[in-house]
Amino acid sequence: MTGVDATHVEQRPMPVPGPLDVLVEVRAVGVCGSDVHWYRDGHIGSTWVTEPLVLGHEASGVIVEVGADVSPERVGSRVAIEPGVPCGRCGDCRAGRYNLCSHVRFLATPPVDGAFASHLVIPSDFAHDVPDALDDDEAALIEPLAVALWAVRKAGVGLGDRVLVSGAGPVGLLVLQVARAAGADVTVCDLSDQRLSIALDLGAQRTIDVANEALSGEFTALVECSGAPSAVMAGVTALGRAGRAVFVGVARDGHVTLPLDIVQSREITVTGTFRYAHQYPDAIALACSGRLDLRRLVTSTHPLSGVHEALLLPGHDRSALKPMIHPQQDETTSA
Amino acid sequence: MTGVDATHVEQRPMPVPGPLDVLVEVRAVGVCGSDVHWYRDGHIGSTWVTEPLVLGHEASGVIVEVGADVSPERVGSRVAIEPGVPCGRCGDCRAGRYNLCSHVRFLATPPVDGAFASHLVIPSDFAHDVPDALDDDEAALIEPLAVALWAVRKAGVGLGDRVLVSGAGPVGLLVLQVARAAGADVTVCDLSDQRLSIALDLGAQRTIDVANEALSGEFTALVECSGAPSAVMAGVTALGRAGRAVFVGVARDGHVTLPLDIVQSREITVTGTFRYAHQYPDAIALACSGRLDLRRLVTSTHPLSGVHEALLLPGHDRSALKPMIHPQQDETTSA
Amino acid sequence: MTGVDATHVEQRPMPVPGPLDVLVEVRAVGVCGSDVHWYRDGHIGSTWVTEPLVLGHEASGVIVEVGADVSPERVGSRVAIEPGVPCGRCGDCRAGRYNLCSHVRFLATPPVDGAFASHLVIPSDFAHDVPDALDDDEAALIEPLAVALWAVRKAGVGLGDRVLVSGAGPVGLLVLQVARAAGADVTVCDLSDQRLSIALDLGAQRTIDVANEALSGEFTALVECSGAPSAVMAGVTALGRAGRAVFVGVARDGHVTLPLDIVQSREITVTGTFRYAHQYPDAIALACSGRLDLRRLVTSTHPLSGVHEALLLPGHDRSALKPMIHPQQDETTSA
Amino acid sequence: MTGVDATHVEQRPMPVPGPLDVLVEVRAVGVCGSDVHWYRDGHIGSTWVTEPLVLGHEASGVIVEVGADVSPERVGSRVAIEPGVPCGRCGDCRAGRYNLCSHVRFLATPPVDGAFASHLVIPSDFAHDVPDALDDDEAALIEPLAVALWAVRKAGVGLGDRVLVSGAGPVGLLVLQVARAAGADVTVCDLSDQRLSIALDLGAQRTIDVANEALSGEFTALVECSGAPSAVMAGVTALGRAGRAVFVGVARDGHVTLPLDIVQSREITVTGTFRYAHQYPDAIALACSGRLDLRRLVTSTHPLSGVHEALLLPGHDRSALKPMIHPQQDETTSA
Repeated sequence: MTGVDATHVEQRPMPVPGPLDVLVEVRAVGVCGSDVHWYRDGHIGSTWVTEPLVLGHEASGVIVEVGADVSPERVGSRVAIEPGVPCGRCGDCRAGRYNLCSHVRFLATPPVDGAFASHLVIPSDFAHDVPDALDDDEAALIEPLAVALWAVRKAGVGLGDRVLVSGAGPVGLLVLQVARAAGADVTVCDLSDQRLSIALDLGAQRTIDVANEALSGEFTALVECSGAPSAVMAGVTALGRAGRAVFVGVARDGHVTLPLDIVQSREITVTGTFRYAHQYPDAIALACSGRLDLRRLVTSTHPLSGVHEALLLPGHDRSALKPMIHPQQDETTSA
Repeated sequence: MTGVDATHVEQRPMPVPGPLDVLVEVRAVGVCGSDVHWYRDGHIGSTWVTEPLVLGHEASGVIVEVGADVSPERVGSRVAIEPGVPCGRCGDCRAGRYNLCSHVRFLATPPVDGAFASHLVIPSDFAHDVPDALDDDEAALIEPLAVALWAVRKAGVGLGDRVLVSGAGPVGLLVLQVARAAGADVTVCDLSDQRLSIALDLGAQRTIDVANEALSGEFTALVECSGAPSAVMAGVTALGRAGRAVFVGVARDGHVTLPLDIVQSREITVTGTFRYAHQYPDAIALACSGRLDLRRLVTSTHPLSGVHEALLLPGHDRSALKPMIHPQQDETTSA
Repeated sequence: MTGVDATHVEQRPMPVPGPLDVLVEVRAVGVCGSDVHWYRDGHIGSTWVTEPLVLGHEASGVIVEVGADVSPERVGSRVAIEPGVPCGRCGDCRAGRYNLCSHVRFLATPPVDGAFASHLVIPSDFAHDVPDALDDDEAALIEPLAVALWAVRKAGVGLGDRVLVSGAGPVGLLVLQVARAAGADVTVCDLSDQRLSIALDLGAQRTIDVANEALSGEFTALVECSGAPSAVMAGVTALGRAGRAVFVGVARDGHVTLPLDIVQSREITVTGTFRYAHQYPDAIALACSGRLDLRRLVTSTHPLSGVHEALLLPGHDRSALKPMIHPQQDETTSA
Repeated sequence: MTGVDATHVEQRPMPVPGPLDVLVEVRAVGVCGSDVHWYRDGHIGSTWVTEPLVLGHEASGVIVEVGADVSPERVGSRVAIEPGVPCGRCGDCRAGRYNLCSHVRFLATPPVDGAFASHLVIPSDFAHDVPDALDDDEAALIEPLAVALWAVRKAGVGLGDRVLVSGAGPVGLLVLQVARAAGADVTVCDLSDQRLSIALDLGAQRTIDVANEALSGEFTALVECSGAPSAVMAGVTALGRAGRAVFVGVARDGHVTLPLDIVQSREITVTGTFRYAHQYPDAIALACSGRLDLRRLVTSTHPLSGVHEALLLPGHDRSALKPMIHPQQDETTSA
């Protein structure tokens, strides 16, 4: 990305892994909503893209080289890449909240380059082995699955819960599946009939088309994945006593209106999530368990040279859930 | 209360306790902000006072008669009255959330008469024995102390916490004292210098006059007791990562703006409290521990015939924290 | 039960429901290990059967009469009977721990008669409606399912957990199924190959025949259902760091040896369960969800007159999981 | 330590800090029970001292040199040394349980040398600044205070708790003080009258001399600091329903008998602690708060050359709580 809506593929020197790093040949990278925002708006919140930036942070690949202090046996391993590398030393890291580390380096967040590339370097600990049961696209989707798993856990979802998932985009559809795997009943609401029908396919007990139908029910948990202020208000209002709400979706202007009277009279607990901490091993195990269908989210695949098109797709076509970039496709073609 | 700003004292038949009830001679009743709201506005939220209503729910007294199934030994006991009597049978009651019972009968909440009376009837279980170490006013103040204790517990406040209490009214000053007793460092903010100086007397490490000074600091917990939307916004923004916010103060229109971006990027947890459940025994023990000063809150005492004046005081005079009604004073006078 | 190993069926006057009670025609009652203990030993711990006692507490039936304060519409409802009726007023009840109520009256625990009877009276709140999707036997098995659900929840079992269930009796097999429904991987160990093969049928990922094989693995949670001291020791030792152990099985002499060094060096949390609180609604919903197979536990059915035989079965035959008493079978026959 | 009961002081080359390390001139080191065990027995559990070992891990000092990547401004800082340095990369570290890191290097645990030395090297992050309000001995005692704080937190101790601390050695007396600071009522039991009278001085509401008096009461939490199996049994038995027990004391043979029937019928939660994670900042703040008296634990001070005597003291004299080593005393003398 060289500017808003501007991208090109360029040759760069092969990056060299440090002592604890690995060099990964990138096989698949999902296009995330945040990539789309960077690309279309040039900023997210108060962070602006001011230099050319490689986007993409939902990546899988194969280790092709290891640093001096990494076991050479790792070469050849297929891995899911955890894109946020915390400092490991601050108070938040020590307390196990490494997603909140203020020194974190996160792929495709300025000034850190991302994964829409043929190769990338990452600390060995953040390249998680995946079994062959997962293909490259599924391995890349461990990243949004970790987002969903974290959110479901923050919401304390389990047996006996009646969960409302608002927003049936990729994250919402993953939250749905994770909540189902955790034994909950799940209702999904969205404005798009098309997405709601996918939600039904993926196991939702009930869907609500909020364009045409009022939100009803008494839920024990809300996982808000749309970022729409109206969804926050309606979702919290649909919670029963002692309900829990977790906000995953990002609000356009950063603020939402909260029905405080309802939060108080029902003693509802509300929190928000920021990425995830220590979720990759469980997310990989969950992906292998057969309890969910990651492939259903992949709606198209593109070579590196198709990044521009892929980034624009979700804005044009609500059926486009998760375009995937396959960087090695270019290599093969060009070879 | 016979209407907005209208009150009179009338003779009524002496109430008769049911089998599990006790008849209490009321000794002291605190004036609460909710009494003031009923009295001045005629409603709280969507609940209106449509019939004459006896106000007052922060009460202490002496048991003078017991129902058939209550031990006669209770006669003569000095008691703090827990004003909300839940059904004991619904799902919320069974789960230990009896404050959320939808069948609760709460003193001075229409149509249930309150405690500005010479006598009242209450189930025996809700008349909690108090030792002589507490005087009648302190026994009455167990009620707002239970509110504060519940809030402090919901905020998970303990050793190592840096707590911000916003609003230095009676509840805020109790929250301050409870949080101090739990080992936390406490900062209190308010618009009133007068109240902040009381906060300092009661153990606040620091006060912030938000009329003249920006809120600063990085707190681990916020207990919001003012209900002011600006305090919600500023208070949540002053929390550090993994901070917890508890909203006790009631917002005038029931809604507040929440800085969702901060809630998410710091994974802050937010909840609200509604009264309290099962706090009286601990609140009484805490009041007896010598760790807090309830008497400091009592700013005036009035006979029943002075209820009108007492209800107007907090609106006129910010130094009026907690006017107390002493119903037996009238009796004595009239005798 | 008139003495150890002695039982007879007698005619008693039809019990009369109090104002808040219902009269239930009993349809199915499971035989529980505690029934067997009362019957064979005459006591459990320090509680002895000194008077004739009706055993049985895992019951379902149909409401045939209601008390004065119960809605007459309940007549005809099929219900699962929650056998422990707490006082509703003590501190434990108020705190939501009603299973620990010291005033509880529990069916078939001296001196309270149980459910091996044609009819019984129970408070209306403790007769939980069941949908027709559950048959009478399944409705009766809501009771041990509530035991299992409570244990699984106490163990905090969910996605990502690797659970060891020790003991493949009825409760262990239910814990297995509940843990599976909650998204966990489950290993079951027992001394009986026969029972382990049922565990495999019911979804266990792995079984360990501890008669022939050492317990291995690193589990995140242990649910101990055998009461065998060796299982406690081996099970706790098989937990990883921050593991949780829940003891459901009752030890013969009430004591077990705990590997304190392991509990400390791995900071393992240990607790025990006593029945359950507020689990019937969720257990019924779970039973209806299709995620588990209650019928697989029913290994024989008997009329009331066959209670003696049914009580002896589990001692003779390890394939006897859950003999069911069908009291109406006698009625039909005798009619 | 060159063998059991054998020690000498030797000159060694000054250690050189790595890039992220600091070199600390040691000012004060407490003698811990574990030092005494190593010294008298030659082993703790299955870990043996096979090479000469420098003992001591409760240390404070002054930074005299910093590694290349540490701010030179740290030179001159007075610090409390956190003696356990985890790998920072394993699953336990990432999850915030760094005390359970299996790669941890802990001072004075073979083969890692400890702090009975004039200087030592430690990673900069593990040398925590202390304010001048704390003297060198108090700064050294941050280590056992962190042990106590961790235990009190694991026990969930706060307002309303009635805590039993069994064992009035240094850790028990710190647990007492921390629990008092957290707002709890505290009872201390021990076999030594002398120690119980110190407990009273330090704020215990009540003491029980278990040599002459049965343990009575109904506690909400137990913090077991003696390691005596009889204390485990009696302490757990003295807990009320839903009580919590935390085992800090190490049992001689690693096993204890647990009253499972009581754990179950009261649904008591039991856990053990292993050192502490992320407690130094809060422990330092607590030590500065004036809520506790660390100096009361210091019963003697010794130069390095007096280590042998200091290590034997606690075994000979029950009034010896915490002998302190002051390594610079030798330097001064020899200078």
